[in-house]
Amino acid sequence: MITTDICIIGAGPVGLFAVFEAGLLKMRCHLIDVLPQVGGQLSEIYPHKPIYDIPGYPSIQAQELIDRQMEQIAPFKPTFTLGERVEALEKQADGSYHVIGSEGTVIHCQVVVIAGGLGCFEPRKPELANLAKYEDEYVHYMVRNPEKFRDKTILIAGGGDSALDWTIYLADIAKQVTLVHRSDSFRGAPDSADKVYEMAKAGKINLLLSHNLVALQGNGKLDSVQLTNKQKEGLVVATDYFIPLYGLSPKLGPIADWGLNIDKNAIEVNTFDYSTNIERIYAIGDINTYPGKLKLILCGYHEAALMCQSAFRYVYPDQKLSFKYTTVNGVNAF
Amino acid sequence: MITTDICIIGAGPVGLFAVFEAGLLKMRCHLIDVLPQVGGQLSEIYPHKPIYDIPGYPSIQAQELIDRQMEQIAPFKPTFTLGERVEALEKQADGSYHVIGSEGTVIHCQVVVIAGGLGCFEPRKPELANLAKYEDEYVHYMVRNPEKFRDKTILIAGGGDSALDWTIYLADIAKQVTLVHRSDSFRGAPDSADKVYEMAKAGKINLLLSHNLVALQGNGKLDSVQLTNKQKEGLVVATDYFIPLYGLSPKLGPIADWGLNIDKNAIEVNTFDYSTNIERIYAIGDINTYPGKLKLILCGYHEAALMCQSAFRYVYPDQKLSFKYTTVNGVNAF
Repeated sequence: MITTDICIIGAGPVGLFAVFEAGLLKMRCHLIDVLPQVGGQLSEIYPHKPIYDIPGYPSIQAQELIDRQMEQIAPFKPTFTLGERVEALEKQADGSYHVIGSEGTVIHCQVVVIAGGLGCFEPRKPELANLAKYEDEYVHYMVRNPEKFRDKTILIAGGGDSALDWTIYLADIAKQVTLVHRSDSFRGAPDSADKVYEMAKAGKINLLLSHNLVALQGNGKLDSVQLTNKQKEGLVVATDYFIPLYGLSPKLGPIADWGLNIDKNAIEVNTFDYSTNIERIYAIGDINTYPGKLKLILCGYHEAALMCQSAFRYVYPDQKLSFKYTTVNGVNAF
Repeated sequence: MITTDICIIGAGPVGLFAVFEAGLLKMRCHLIDVLPQVGGQLSEIYPHKPIYDIPGYPSIQAQELIDRQMEQIAPFKPTFTLGERVEALEKQADGSYHVIGSEGTVIHCQVVVIAGGLGCFEPRKPELANLAKYEDEYVHYMVRNPEKFRDKTILIAGGGDSALDWTIYLADIAKQVTLVHRSDSFRGAPDSADKVYEMAKAGKINLLLSHNLVALQGNGKLDSVQLTNKQKEGLVVATDYFIPLYGLSPKLGPIADWGLNIDKNAIEVNTFDYSTNIERIYAIGDINTYPGKLKLILCGYHEAALMCQSAFRYVYPDQKLSFKYTTVNGVNAF
């Protein structure tokens, strides 16, 4: 049995930062994650994708952010159980918890922090009859390695940030990029949408708005994608690869059965300390919801900091938390 | 007259990051700050101080963080009025505001964001009769340039994070560091306190707990500081410099007269969008307060992001904000 102060479920950027904030309060953390490495989606799905909205980083590749965060928490010596799903949560007589992993690992902790991101997620797929035929080789629901598409012809489908960001990024790498979106306006950041409009105007990409996917075509190998426009007129676009970026479908997995208040696949928390309706269980990052919630990594960082101040009472019930860690204030502000 | 979408009062790290989040929503920002340069306290008071709690930066000097943030917001072309204090706020018939600076600058905006940090702040001073005599040369209320103390003997007074952090940092630079604290325990991060205890045990610094300052001594030049212990016994510590780090005394300045709800020198906001009790006026960063508030830069970043989502309605009253900017979610999460 592993014994720790806080068991963090999920080793993505928010779970990792919680180790830092806990460490400042002298609370030890153990993290458990179903993925075989730390970093959550950032390492698993888009390690090479540049992120632009981490404060103080004009641009940083997802994996580099995780690497820097691992460096930042190293002094606090967190421990990890990787490649194991959390299967059960058992409350002990003294209020503490046993977190049980799918491989039989038992983690004894005073506080449970769910930082599961989108939890057990899977890509949303377009409804195309013969999709499965091309899936293994020619259809990519996420861009793990942009170099795969160097000098290739690709067709991206979608209207959110992923579709916009990857269109912009891959335009410099692929031979030709076509972006197909069923609506005539984008749901992604207006700034990114503007860039895509400009690139289309300059002939750097093909942009097909108000077009629907009909079928994938090709004999064994993918040759082209069949589309229709608003007037139901057909159109065939030749492509080497088809990249539908319709987002991820969240699944909470076993966490949904623990009696937590759930709203649309997210765990309800308050904004005072990001605690759930169950004592000693907190939820931070993309997996939680509250009025005004934004699914941004930087918001998860804030949630982690406030959570730790509250969790302290369960780890050190006899101590008064009479300080806050900050580099800005002087002594008398506390 | 300067016309902008959002007028941000305060160009510290949180005000600067608000420019980024606003920019993603295509809102323009103008920043006004009483200091002659951007960066707030980070640039003015401790540009060389390493900060450890910015997520993704194991350590970053305060000025470097500001430099990186300026680079991050450059694409959104913010404009600045520096070296000017905000003197008045005038509501216009259409709901917009005029922000009036002390040099007569008028900024017309749809939304006012107060990101004033500790506002007009000044160092708290110890009550010592002859303090003023040594103030200009031998007494330092903040460490602007650590190199000033290289190979010198220094006496630091205080028990919070500033006193602990600078004791640790300057131990490697100064010839000898003495830390004096009136209590027998520290208010700063326990992790830092432990480091200071260890350094004292190893003879790297002198640590005087439960000691009170009595007087500064020296003929023209500072020679020593007179102290007393718990038993009121006297003690004289020779020193080249005296560095009392008792924090900053916040003053809201003219902002206190605008009818905003104020609690202990901080502006009350809600945690849904960090709006104040007055429509179109928001407060983010160290100047605001709400249940659970932590005065951390990273919390101000979060507040800036949520604020922008709410401010959008005043800048683009006819548009629906149908997206959130994130690099994590796919299209259908919006």
